[in-house]
Amino acid sequence: MTGRPINFAEKFEKFSKQWSPRIIAQMNDAHFKLARVQGEFVWHSHPDTDEVFVVIDGEMAIHFRDGVAALRAGEMLVAPRGVEHKPVAARECKILLVEAAGTANTGDVRSELTAEDGLWI
Amino acid sequence: MTGRPINFAEKFEKFSKQWSPRIIAQMNDAHFKLARVQGEFVWHSHPDTDEVFVVIDGEMAIHFRDGVAALRAGEMLVAPRGVEHKPVAARECKILLVEAAGTANTGDVRSELTAEDGLWI
Repeated sequence: MTGRPINFAEKFEKFSKQWSPRIIAQMNDAHFKLARVQGEFVWHSHPDTDEVFVVIDGEMAIHFRDGVAALRAGEMLVAPRGVEHKPVAARECKILLVEAAGTANTGDVRSELTAEDGLWI
Repeated sequence: MTGRPINFAEKFEKFSKQWSPRIIAQMNDAHFKLARVQGEFVWHSHPDTDEVFVVIDGEMAIHFRDGVAALRAGEMLVAPRGVEHKPVAARECKILLVEAAGTANTGDVRSELTAEDGLWI
């Protein structure tokens, strides 16, 4: 059939690694990715794409140089292209990311947290 | 501050009209829209954009010419560009749509259900 439902909870069961986004869908030139995040990520920006964070389960914060945005399930935020940000989560938080296909999770920064891109589940 | 959390429940309180998507965010050239849907929509397609449906609250179905996809909260689906589809919901269902900015809700079809585009909340 043309359209197949994608169940977030079922997809999250397919991986446990944190800070390692998995692609679940493509819309035009954007990828929809699920990620598990916990702890403190690196400061980075994405020069060529805005990045949407949607919290599916849990709580997290997005640090910007001019403030901190707290996000919980049922909330989303747009990190504009080129703007430095740092995701942080005290406990594991499950999120949906939407960004241009081919976007590295650490953007313009190389880090031990830089994840392999292109992992579909 | 750069990034501001967008709370879906709070945004849904700002409108009650069904089949009238409201824009809540832009990511690159895509709009994120909230909509309340109930009843049977018209068959239509979007020649120039894929369309993502994410169910926030409730249940709905997306009819395709080759089958029906049932969707509930915590699930999403991509309706590919150019593919006819018809959303249906027995009871009011709250959804998040992601599609190219400037996309009409009835796509290539003009209908009494064609909504005004460009309504931000």
